[in-house]
Amino acid sequence: MSTVTTPGTGAHAVVPEAVRRARAYLLRVVEPPSWEVVRFVEQYGPVEAAELIRRGEVPRGVGEKVHARRGYDHVDADLDAARSVGARLLVPEDADWPTWTFGAFEAADHPDLAPPLALWVRGPGSLAALAERAVAVVGSRAASGYGTHAAVELGSALGAAGVTVVSGAAFGIDAAAHRGALAAGGPTLAVLACGVDRPYPVAHTSLLERIAASALVVSEYPPGAVPARHRFLVRNRLLAAIGSGCVVVEAGARSGSQRTASDAGALGRPVMAVPGPITSAMSVGSHELIRHGAELVGRPDHVLETVGRLGIDLAVEPSRPRRPTDDLTPAALAVHGALPARAAWSVERLTEESGQVADVVRSALTELERRGLAEFHHGLWQRPGPTRRRDA
Amino acid sequence: MSTVTTPGTGAHAVVPEAVRRARAYLLRVVEPPSWEVVRFVEQYGPVEAAELIRRGEVPRGVGEKVHARRGYDHVDADLDAARSVGARLLVPEDADWPTWTFGAFEAADHPDLAPPLALWVRGPGSLAALAERAVAVVGSRAASGYGTHAAVELGSALGAAGVTVVSGAAFGIDAAAHRGALAAGGPTLAVLACGVDRPYPVAHTSLLERIAASALVVSEYPPGAVPARHRFLVRNRLLAAIGSGCVVVEAGARSGSQRTASDAGALGRPVMAVPGPITSAMSVGSHELIRHGAELVGRPDHVLETVGRLGIDLAVEPSRPRRPTDDLTPAALAVHGALPARAAWSVERLTEESGQVADVVRSALTELERRGLAEFHHGLWQRPGPTRRRDA
Repeated sequence: MSTVTTPGTGAHAVVPEAVRRARAYLLRVVEPPSWEVVRFVEQYGPVEAAELIRRGEVPRGVGEKVHARRGYDHVDADLDAARSVGARLLVPEDADWPTWTFGAFEAADHPDLAPPLALWVRGPGSLAALAERAVAVVGSRAASGYGTHAAVELGSALGAAGVTVVSGAAFGIDAAAHRGALAAGGPTLAVLACGVDRPYPVAHTSLLERIAASALVVSEYPPGAVPARHRFLVRNRLLAAIGSGCVVVEAGARSGSQRTASDAGALGRPVMAVPGPITSAMSVGSHELIRHGAELVGRPDHVLETVGRLGIDLAVEPSRPRRPTDDLTPAALAVHGALPARAAWSVERLTEESGQVADVVRSALTELERRGLAEFHHGLWQRPGPTRRRDA
Repeated sequence: MSTVTTPGTGAHAVVPEAVRRARAYLLRVVEPPSWEVVRFVEQYGPVEAAELIRRGEVPRGVGEKVHARRGYDHVDADLDAARSVGARLLVPEDADWPTWTFGAFEAADHPDLAPPLALWVRGPGSLAALAERAVAVVGSRAASGYGTHAAVELGSALGAAGVTVVSGAAFGIDAAAHRGALAAGGPTLAVLACGVDRPYPVAHTSLLERIAASALVVSEYPPGAVPARHRFLVRNRLLAAIGSGCVVVEAGARSGSQRTASDAGALGRPVMAVPGPITSAMSVGSHELIRHGAELVGRPDHVLETVGRLGIDLAVEPSRPRRPTDDLTPAALAVHGALPARAAWSVERLTEESGQVADVVRSALTELERRGLAEFHHGLWQRPGPTRRRDA
């Protein structure tokens, strides 16, 4: 197996438990996607943002998103349920959060395309590493024999080339693409529209087990969450974002796959489509995409060429979206995550909150201050205020 | 039948027999395409150009093209052979010569894409009228059942819409496209790589008879000419030029159809291609064309939309290539065709040569002089010299 695994459990130890619990709470009470909540969490930090939401002390835009569920107290239950299936909560403060990949959400600046606040992940894979060379392969549930064959072949060729096959574990094209990758011993990642502890569809229980055993099953919905209809559309933006490109193998007219392709395009990902017979209703969506600018891919090589070019292009791309926290060490990220926005704490308190030793906290604070991400007043540390941050 | 027919035989009566005979001679001795000979004929007029070629008094570039056959004297035999199968020689001086359509050759300015010097045509159709709304439909001889089906459907839909289906009468896609058009009672035009009196392939004798009976079978090769291999490639440029767009239905890798598509692109015609299963070798060429910019057409409507848009665009297109003889009356064209470039003739002589009565010749000469196409010196008429014409 060429699956990329996490760089040791040490990467997680640096994120304070309070941060992870706060984000677990947020995933339970906020129905994604929500730029309002993403911005609110950026402003206050996850711990304080979660507390403010719990207390209802939030601006109206955020309040509307969390009113129905803010009283929920499922954090322990969710963490336990995840642990029981070998899953964990991946947060932006983790070293294997795909910060760079999800930078596409900031760059797209689209109201429906907000990044996830955290992700429940199940499996040994590192999301950041798996997303480095990844292609979303999507298509119809009611795939034809032709489409299924094409998806298996494509999944297998991508897998053999070490490219992560990202799909949704649904019937039809999704399953065929995952299976092709698994057959080639390649990495494959499933993004679900329900909890990572739910085998959905049930017929794919063993497929999901195999993906979870080798790479990663991912969801922004909490354990036990059911796959409500609208969640598939919301989930599709994650497929689109995690893939460096998106291939539609078969799609009917006005299909969910076309929506995924549209999200991929909005996120700056190249959209590709596999043609088929013009007599097949299952290829109408693929053909429409090609007519509107998607690249026709007739061989797996075509996909690899496009993804390969991407890799090269991105390496020299100067307009890469930057976050102020990019390139911070895991320890500095942990301290940054612990810093309060509306309070000021001592180094001792930050040592407790961040889980880092005092020397590491002091060194991290110096670096954060240099970047304008922390301020020192009267012997206490805090985040710069909202006004100040906007100027920074 | 919605076939467009010629506007009466009167359109032909105005072209002097000498002009038609000269061009019949040229088609026999010059292997197309040849810009050198086209330019030479433009400079001297067909009658004098033919005479100069016959005598060997030509520049080296022209001499190389005609050396082997300039002694041939087949004009009477060719005209007789054509007449015996109901064919005739269409010359640029005829009213139904597609002057505007073939303007694409001048605009393309490509060494391999010279216009024909004349065309042998068989059938009741007017080439100019048939070419007004025409689409070339081409593809593999070894078409699959899928491709054959797609070509019949496309030919039928174009035919039903009154769009001329232009193809090469070959096995496979060509024949399917012609048959679809005929089944819909639509106009269809075959361009051959051999004489219009030869049923090639023999198995398509009855198909060619049906096309000749309803619209037009066309060739720039003289009666009796055999379909030598290179003539198919040379013929393809005429398919590409006569169609306002070119659709490749099925094509293998590196096929003749791709060459036709390439000619169409060079001539400014939109190139379209029908996709197929990526598992079919017969669709590899179509897919390559789409990857390189051809429009994917999944339904006949897509072709009709593109051709329709073309019609609209061209109606307002200001950069339409103009020839100084555009819009001349048939009589003026006939007199122009009779005018010598290196001699000067009386009105009486021009009356004989052009086949027009003296009053018509005088009126035509006045119009030609106004346009800079004729000069009067010492009581005799002639064409402007080469230097003078370049200035005009």
